[in-house]
Amino acid sequence: MQPHSTSLPRRRLLAGSASALAAAGLASFQGQALAQAAAPAAKPLPGYAGFKNADAVIVHSSTTIETKRSAFGTSVITPSNQLYVRNNLPTPNASIVADRDAWQVQIDGVKQPRQLSVAELKKMGLETVTMVLQCSGNGRGFFPSKPSGTQWTVGAAGCVVWSGVPVREVVKALGGVADGMVYMTGTGGEVLPAGIDPKTVMVERSVPLSAMQDALLAWEMNGEPISLAHGGPLRLIVPGYTGVNNIKYIKQLAFTLKESEAHIMSHGYRISPPGSKSDPSQPSVQEMSVKSWINSPLPEAGTQAAGMVQIHGVAFGGMHAVKGVEVSTDGGKSWKPARLVGPDMGKYAWRQFVLQAQLPKGTHVLASRATDEKGNLQPETRGENQSGYNNTSWADHAVTVTVA
Amino acid sequence: MQPHSTSLPRRRLLAGSASALAAAGLASFQGQALAQAAAPAAKPLPGYAGFKNADAVIVHSSTTIETKRSAFGTSVITPSNQLYVRNNLPTPNASIVADRDAWQVQIDGVKQPRQLSVAELKKMGLETVTMVLQCSGNGRGFFPSKPSGTQWTVGAAGCVVWSGVPVREVVKALGGVADGMVYMTGTGGEVLPAGIDPKTVMVERSVPLSAMQDALLAWEMNGEPISLAHGGPLRLIVPGYTGVNNIKYIKQLAFTLKESEAHIMSHGYRISPPGSKSDPSQPSVQEMSVKSWINSPLPEAGTQAAGMVQIHGVAFGGMHAVKGVEVSTDGGKSWKPARLVGPDMGKYAWRQFVLQAQLPKGTHVLASRATDEKGNLQPETRGENQSGYNNTSWADHAVTVTVA
Repeated sequence: MQPHSTSLPRRRLLAGSASALAAAGLASFQGQALAQAAAPAAKPLPGYAGFKNADAVIVHSSTTIETKRSAFGTSVITPSNQLYVRNNLPTPNASIVADRDAWQVQIDGVKQPRQLSVAELKKMGLETVTMVLQCSGNGRGFFPSKPSGTQWTVGAAGCVVWSGVPVREVVKALGGVADGMVYMTGTGGEVLPAGIDPKTVMVERSVPLSAMQDALLAWEMNGEPISLAHGGPLRLIVPGYTGVNNIKYIKQLAFTLKESEAHIMSHGYRISPPGSKSDPSQPSVQEMSVKSWINSPLPEAGTQAAGMVQIHGVAFGGMHAVKGVEVSTDGGKSWKPARLVGPDMGKYAWRQFVLQAQLPKGTHVLASRATDEKGNLQPETRGENQSGYNNTSWADHAVTVTVA
Repeated sequence: MQPHSTSLPRRRLLAGSASALAAAGLASFQGQALAQAAAPAAKPLPGYAGFKNADAVIVHSSTTIETKRSAFGTSVITPSNQLYVRNNLPTPNASIVADRDAWQVQIDGVKQPRQLSVAELKKMGLETVTMVLQCSGNGRGFFPSKPSGTQWTVGAAGCVVWSGVPVREVVKALGGVADGMVYMTGTGGEVLPAGIDPKTVMVERSVPLSAMQDALLAWEMNGEPISLAHGGPLRLIVPGYTGVNNIKYIKQLAFTLKESEAHIMSHGYRISPPGSKSDPSQPSVQEMSVKSWINSPLPEAGTQAAGMVQIHGVAFGGMHAVKGVEVSTDGGKSWKPARLVGPDMGKYAWRQFVLQAQLPKGTHVLASRATDEKGNLQPETRGENQSGYNNTSWADHAVTVTVA
């Protein structure tokens, strides 16, 4: 069962115009009925992700696993066994986590470049950050243009806790950043296929030097050593930046004059106009922006009983804290302020929101829109782009529920 | 391997006097060597707790499972697969979590008593609280008097996130608490053995009515439906109160004039003077108080290399927020303020603390002591009592590490 991919027909209509909303609700149920009849068998979990809760995830492929929208709870933190996976290369052999403390990372572009083991890093500092980890393509499944790539809806995201050493502490211990450097460039430790130019496949991403301030070299996620699935034994964590910038199995962290020339940086993850090819002059997918969505009630729970309902979901600001969330039960015609519940785990974490509402008999289009502390409002429409990145449209994320 | 139960000889000496500290360090290593030679094979996880990480826990019995001290990370939240288990009765059949929303709880001692299903509770309100869940007997293993019961050291505790409906919302919907009631009494839904007076075995506990303010009827823990091991489908959560007061599989919540007459309330969990029998006139084990301990470095990691170390652990205030933590590297002769790291998840959660220190060659006794926001300081010594409850002694929780 992949409830959200089955509701794409509705979402496409929904994205069109406000007047299509009522019809959209009906379209949704027709679409679901058709899709259920033809639903393919669920794919099995790949071995490296065998600890995932199969009931809580959608296995798109051996390297792409999505959290079901209905599985997001209200406890802020996404449990490791529900968190999405997106690997750009095959997962390394488990031997790299056999002796975690022995893993080495080369630090370059500092005054005293050197290689450091995880054991050495653990002596240099300790910090913990909670943040939203989100794939650049989360929400791609809502693009009517059907961009190529995994058709994620909302579940290529989670809120997790990382522990490690602040990058700034490591840099300080190595004499500071070398003069003139403007990027922080991380390189993954995946084994590359032989016989081809490494630049075409390697995972290497550059972020602005300013991102160093809150970045970690992390060895722990959600209270456990980072699993192989999530980049253990060591991962570069760049809070507020999309998933691909958080380099798994990091083997080199370099401060550089230029952006990486790896294809994944120069051409991958670029915001290209629809119909165009990507190139290095286009904006790179890096900082996340304000976004929210509702996780309950959902249409896949079936027809709801009329009466009180707790409409809840998640909201985050990317680089900034969430200031507030509004919820609509009429497809965006009117909005009410939702209540933020549960602990505030810092500006990079998401917040849970709840609106208590009476839903009478009928079809209701439920939507949420968040505002960050800088006053940025989550937009109604997505920013169209060739590859389906950065979808923050509240209309795309709306859900239609039927009450009888 | 049960590293902490093997270091009891050291801890007993350590609790005696400051002058015994150096000798204590040696005693520890002798004790460990002896214990390793005679170490029994690890017990298997019981079926209902099969999802626990066997490497991260100590299975004392089929109803008592402890988190290893070395498994506590620095991510604030204790993952579900590492959290301790302590059941007073055999775990109910898994059939009770087959249809979670159908579970019923009877609410009594309100103006309009009635039975409510989990489905109904979910419509009535939603709140999330992070809190330390700790067994009343956590730290019993450090009592030289060897009280009967599980010899927990530090790992009958964790910090977890609960979601559910506030009890006060449920009470409000049922017309308020009936006149004159002074206790909130929860009854567990375990199947009781036939042929004996139910009061002798049932799990039923009373807490003061004031505890209602922050209490939840919870259906979610750490982002997932509450497992059977941790009291699903519905658990009474009383933040700041020891584990036994957080009734699993709750089937009745009553506001009462008197404390429960169940044996677990009248005679169990009482602070009885050493050598005496428990009786209802003695204080009940309920509210937790300020406590902390170090989780790294630990003696079981073996001899440390001289140099910088990040000494880290957890601190909580029970009913009050933690204000600060001090760390000593000389067995309590001198103290330095530690840094609190990571998110503050509210007054009922624990905080992570870190002290960066240079440890030269030699044997070092590392201790921590916390202060809560009311100015209560974690004591050096335990409060002696017959059953080994409420051990908050910083001396008992100190660890001895050797640096070469």
